[in-house]
Amino acid sequence: MTDTSPYVDRIARAIAAMDADGVDAMGLSVGADLPYLTGYRAMPLERLTMLVVRPDADAMLVVPELEAPRVVPDPAFHVVAWSETDDPIALVTDLLGGAHRVAVGAQTWSRFLLALQQRLPGVEFTSADRIMGPLRARKDPHELARLRAVAAAVDATMASLVGLRFAGTTEREMARAIADLLVASGHEEVDFTIVASGPNAASPHHEPGSRVIAAGDTIVVDIGGSLAGYRSDATRTLSVGEPTAEVADAYAVLRRAQEAAIAAVRPGVAAEAVDRAARAVIAEAGYGEAFVHRTGHGIGLETHEAPYIVEGSDTVLEAGMTFSIEPGIYLAGRWGMRLEDIVAVTAGGVERLNRADRGLYIVE
Amino acid sequence: MTDTSPYVDRIARAIAAMDADGVDAMGLSVGADLPYLTGYRAMPLERLTMLVVRPDADAMLVVPELEAPRVVPDPAFHVVAWSETDDPIALVTDLLGGAHRVAVGAQTWSRFLLALQQRLPGVEFTSADRIMGPLRARKDPHELARLRAVAAAVDATMASLVGLRFAGTTEREMARAIADLLVASGHEEVDFTIVASGPNAASPHHEPGSRVIAAGDTIVVDIGGSLAGYRSDATRTLSVGEPTAEVADAYAVLRRAQEAAIAAVRPGVAAEAVDRAARAVIAEAGYGEAFVHRTGHGIGLETHEAPYIVEGSDTVLEAGMTFSIEPGIYLAGRWGMRLEDIVAVTAGGVERLNRADRGLYIVE
Repeated sequence: MTDTSPYVDRIARAIAAMDADGVDAMGLSVGADLPYLTGYRAMPLERLTMLVVRPDADAMLVVPELEAPRVVPDPAFHVVAWSETDDPIALVTDLLGGAHRVAVGAQTWSRFLLALQQRLPGVEFTSADRIMGPLRARKDPHELARLRAVAAAVDATMASLVGLRFAGTTEREMARAIADLLVASGHEEVDFTIVASGPNAASPHHEPGSRVIAAGDTIVVDIGGSLAGYRSDATRTLSVGEPTAEVADAYAVLRRAQEAAIAAVRPGVAAEAVDRAARAVIAEAGYGEAFVHRTGHGIGLETHEAPYIVEGSDTVLEAGMTFSIEPGIYLAGRWGMRLEDIVAVTAGGVERLNRADRGLYIVE
Repeated sequence: MTDTSPYVDRIARAIAAMDADGVDAMGLSVGADLPYLTGYRAMPLERLTMLVVRPDADAMLVVPELEAPRVVPDPAFHVVAWSETDDPIALVTDLLGGAHRVAVGAQTWSRFLLALQQRLPGVEFTSADRIMGPLRARKDPHELARLRAVAAAVDATMASLVGLRFAGTTEREMARAIADLLVASGHEEVDFTIVASGPNAASPHHEPGSRVIAAGDTIVVDIGGSLAGYRSDATRTLSVGEPTAEVADAYAVLRRAQEAAIAAVRPGVAAEAVDRAARAVIAEAGYGEAFVHRTGHGIGLETHEAPYIVEGSDTVLEAGMTFSIEPGIYLAGRWGMRLEDIVAVTAGGVERLNRADRGLYIVE
């Protein structure tokens, strides 16, 4: 990367949010808050990694000695490496000394939170979501550039799908082939490859298995990977051979539902209004009960993050927010379909980050 | 699987351990405690999955409706599916009603623990490690069979390494090729593929990158995958062409250190004694400072779990425990080497689960 480190500024903004919220220390571990503030992603290990942020001190990254070589030094923080026989909870407890209200990273293991609570009785612990969620939800230009790049990589993967032969192959084998395509299309890491065929497509988070794909199947391909830490996530629906009239008609409804949701996106709109826009189209066509999940989720350093596009969310959309729009229709035991793209809220409305063809893909 | 469901018995044993420890409810989420008791592994999602176990009631698996199709029904528990507009914390809070001391799964996200603590003031929360750690550490015959099978799969992968050409290729490309070999050798999932070459090999958890492997390099290949939920984890050290005398001599020390540690394994021995046995050999050869990590970690449904083979651990080894023995020598900026196998404690001593050749692998 040739751009300057964004971390000094991001930590300063986190401290401002802490001040406004009456939080006098924050401890971040696994999950995306840590790479957002430091560029460093902790492995989900039994060995504790924790960044301690306080308004009155330099940020300190407590990290297992073994992992320390993976940390890229940055003026934004100091590294405190602990060896195999040190007690990392004692190290963090010292760094939190005197704090009254401590925000802890949302995905921090309960094991570590409980240990800190035991050593620091009388301290109030709260989730760092309240600090980091709003900061991370509004992407800066640095992040938007990365999200565009990784969206282009998954678009290229989708374009390659029509060159694969699906009939006669298992879901698991197709998932492996598509994982290779994700890498060939520019991803550094493969995050997930859902290939759900025939009746399996009616399970939105189906794990690809030993089912052999057959002519006449509808297939949901929902895939994502990472590039420079940022995530792609896109879904297309395939038909092995020509679809039935029922499937073709339902797919037309799905496309209209996605268009309606995207048309509703602009600053100042509640997230739930976008969900309602998609849901109304599907309900009107008689498939209301078959759209069993929310319309979307934020995306950035994590595949799922704030804002969530769901009934009951009064989050107000702001420029810089990025999220999926992914209506689906699922008929248990028969077939399923989903269409998913990532969009960014702009000052004037909406930018589509994905541009892959949005029709039903006819494959062999 | 043709064998009977082991979950009814495992939940009964968990309840007995809870009783003995004064814990009157347990909530398990992401991580391996949940599949150990139910066969179901929760995805690390912002949507809460939690199994509630109480001595006086049937076990209840609270799961997002979207994930519910992935749950394989079992007489050991009931499923409570929640929809996108339900409040799962309220559901779990109800199921925990009246409990005074609640054990929470070690890897449960802090976000969820904090929300439960807020709804249940006065309840004492503790880590479920104290209940589940000792249960899971002693593998039953069902589990040992699976660990042997997945160890054989990684042994087959190791045997294939000498057929690959390393020189002139990047670490990342080799990591992809080895991931394919893990699958071809019988793994259902690839968990990690560390390929650390030349000076990168001195970082035990190096992420494979763009470094082009060259003649004369020493390469650490540390790989693992899953089969029926159980994990493999093995490391071999490779030399591109003939090694220097320094590397060959150090590797001989490494092998002797591993042999010494394995010879120390039997029921009744403290875990730290096994660590000391490996460390003594390496220290005597003058590389004491270069063995920067513990000797091993337990393995089963997780790659890293109890017991840990480390100085300061007074865990007493028992028959059925399975863990890695993985001494290493790392010279910063120059080279690194590690040799890792999984062993099981038996009534009479030790069983080696890995059988791949333990020499330095000479590759092109």
